[in-house]
Amino acid sequence: MSDIVMSKPNPLITLLTDFGTEDGYVGAMKGVIYGDLPNANVVDISHQIEPFNIRQAAFSLLNYAIYYPANTVHVVVVDPGVGTSRKALIVKTENHYFIGPDNGVFSFIYQILDFSVYEIKKTNFDRKVSHTFHGRDIFAPVAVKILKNQSLKSFAEPTNSYVSFYEQYQRFSENKLRLKVVHVDHFGNLILNFNRQDWKNIGQPTETKLLLDRGFLYGIKETFGDEKEGQVLTLWDSSGYLQIAQNKGNASQLLGMAVGDEIEVEIF
Amino acid sequence: MSDIVMSKPNPLITLLTDFGTEDGYVGAMKGVIYGDLPNANVVDISHQIEPFNIRQAAFSLLNYAIYYPANTVHVVVVDPGVGTSRKALIVKTENHYFIGPDNGVFSFIYQILDFSVYEIKKTNFDRKVSHTFHGRDIFAPVAVKILKNQSLKSFAEPTNSYVSFYEQYQRFSENKLRLKVVHVDHFGNLILNFNRQDWKNIGQPTETKLLLDRGFLYGIKETFGDEKEGQVLTLWDSSGYLQIAQNKGNASQLLGMAVGDEIEVEIF
Amino acid sequence: MSDIVMSKPNPLITLLTDFGTEDGYVGAMKGVIYGDLPNANVVDISHQIEPFNIRQAAFSLLNYAIYYPANTVHVVVVDPGVGTSRKALIVKTENHYFIGPDNGVFSFIYQILDFSVYEIKKTNFDRKVSHTFHGRDIFAPVAVKILKNQSLKSFAEPTNSYVSFYEQYQRFSENKLRLKVVHVDHFGNLILNFNRQDWKNIGQPTETKLLLDRGFLYGIKETFGDEKEGQVLTLWDSSGYLQIAQNKGNASQLLGMAVGDEIEVEIF
Repeated sequence: MSDIVMSKPNPLITLLTDFGTEDGYVGAMKGVIYGDLPNANVVDISHQIEPFNIRQAAFSLLNYAIYYPANTVHVVVVDPGVGTSRKALIVKTENHYFIGPDNGVFSFIYQILDFSVYEIKKTNFDRKVSHTFHGRDIFAPVAVKILKNQSLKSFAEPTNSYVSFYEQYQRFSENKLRLKVVHVDHFGNLILNFNRQDWKNIGQPTETKLLLDRGFLYGIKETFGDEKEGQVLTLWDSSGYLQIAQNKGNASQLLGMAVGDEIEVEIF
Repeated sequence: MSDIVMSKPNPLITLLTDFGTEDGYVGAMKGVIYGDLPNANVVDISHQIEPFNIRQAAFSLLNYAIYYPANTVHVVVVDPGVGTSRKALIVKTENHYFIGPDNGVFSFIYQILDFSVYEIKKTNFDRKVSHTFHGRDIFAPVAVKILKNQSLKSFAEPTNSYVSFYEQYQRFSENKLRLKVVHVDHFGNLILNFNRQDWKNIGQPTETKLLLDRGFLYGIKETFGDEKEGQVLTLWDSSGYLQIAQNKGNASQLLGMAVGDEIEVEIF
Repeated sequence: MSDIVMSKPNPLITLLTDFGTEDGYVGAMKGVIYGDLPNANVVDISHQIEPFNIRQAAFSLLNYAIYYPANTVHVVVVDPGVGTSRKALIVKTENHYFIGPDNGVFSFIYQILDFSVYEIKKTNFDRKVSHTFHGRDIFAPVAVKILKNQSLKSFAEPTNSYVSFYEQYQRFSENKLRLKVVHVDHFGNLILNFNRQDWKNIGQPTETKLLLDRGFLYGIKETFGDEKEGQVLTLWDSSGYLQIAQNKGNASQLLGMAVGDEIEVEIF
């Protein structure tokens, strides 16, 4: 008799934090996970998020989350409000779970995926919950509970209230949009609150004209090299959001633009 | 006939070093481990320990080690004395093994766990041992030998001599203690040589009074927020050691205190 | 009946990039791999290569690659030429596969191992290939294809043309060599284009004399400590290349030497 054993893929948990690694705090979270779920596959995304930079974490999450297989649990701990009354959330999408504080870190996920939100009830934990380290004492154990197929209802309840810093673009006339800078990445690219789906929704206009202080940007390019070195252009970023970039330069510095700045766009 | 196959959890090895990652030295250690033990689960704790900062590594280890499941092997390579006559150790506790140089990096482990110490005999290795890279040539292979259930006796021998920088707190009268700062973490919190077990041992005094240069600190708080922003307080850290912290500030800078400084405490 | 189940080791993929981790780009690559090959073991080497520093990446690769078990796939993405016409390569050696851009990042591998080179054909990918992120859209998927035992021919073709920055040492008379500095590591050690095999090839001369601006270095030492603190010496590095080092110092700064500098050596 032949035994063909297909080993089941290990349950996947990704970690994104602003903890750095050198104090062993991330190490403690991993220990808690492996202690309760020895076959887990814990994937480091980053622990180098700038301390308390929720927007950087939200944008990072947008860049990687969707590439993971079904049932992955994404844990995000960038949590300046730890120990206050901010809620702890589970965001459930068709394929994934997202766990973290309710401070806007899931803002982009709310834009691109269908989702439902649950608030973690801070009861019913075997381990004593500290006031200072929810990553170890709440978020990691909740990830394990989910991957052990415990019912969400046993430790969380649905909620319709959650924080998002994302503001929808505005269409203030037939052929005029107002967009906002929602993130500046570390190359100085300006990410706007407008993605390919939005573009489809308004009929895929072939002609666009961005109005900047110092001139216009026509069209949406395919790649940085579609403009000469030093030139500014508009293109889709690798996650499908519209961005303003400078080929081999820093658009944010060049244009003096930052998060929250608004841009008018004419479409034809 | 039904085949229910429980896959055995993979053997766990954690790595803490001051190597950085960019030269590929940590990569080499991982390669050695996977080469000899293909099913190993190698967990990065940190490779960003400040070069040669044994105290930072010791404190980090305290923060994560105990959360790992039984039979985890913790490898620590912060080793300014590599190539000198410093010993290479295996520290065995009830659940874990710790491997690293004998330079005090296990000081906190010696405080919180029962342990026995073995010196690695630098013989009996298949691989040629370099003079410059014991992480790859000694510590990683020893971790593998342990996880393969090779007898410790075949490559190590018990010793009663080992280095610790930890000095026990002093009780110099019925109601007076003298504590010492043993670590300053990266938030500027001052970690003292006094933990919850010590506190139990002296009868769990409800009233404490720390004497600082500029005043007194009464009581042991639960969380940073128990004092107003900017205030200094005493509380247990997330590993159970007493610390002096400034709420949303840096106690070390504010108080001008550093590792080795002493503090008197009155208890009632 | 007894069931003894030997679980097969998970397929190994190592990652070396200059991406940093905080933008989630490495996270996306890992997601692509786990999505297509759930049992993969993705090993982080480093994502802290200095941006665009091909020589640092090449040297790092030299330090770790050979320690990995057979069939490991090493992915290297330090790729200043992404989106240009630079080729994408698979380098096959006896035991391993190396995947990355054709920019010299495999220069040391070409020196120490037998190899054959394949160019990745940018067709035949399920996923749409972006112009800006080949790590996610080409290199990671190719690693998976290889580990799924897809024929190289289906997505790559042999080539004899590839970039190497490594220049062979010169022997310009019976007892005179000319070596070149090919890398300066982060301790300031000067790595030369001469390894143990080269030394064997010229008959293992027992006496060597390096001619530096300010004097001579005799012999090849075993370890840094073979010279007094502050002294300069010649020794083999932990990967078998000749290096000039200063014991507890920075040879590059002390000697004012950098990549590309030449050194004459007399042998006896």
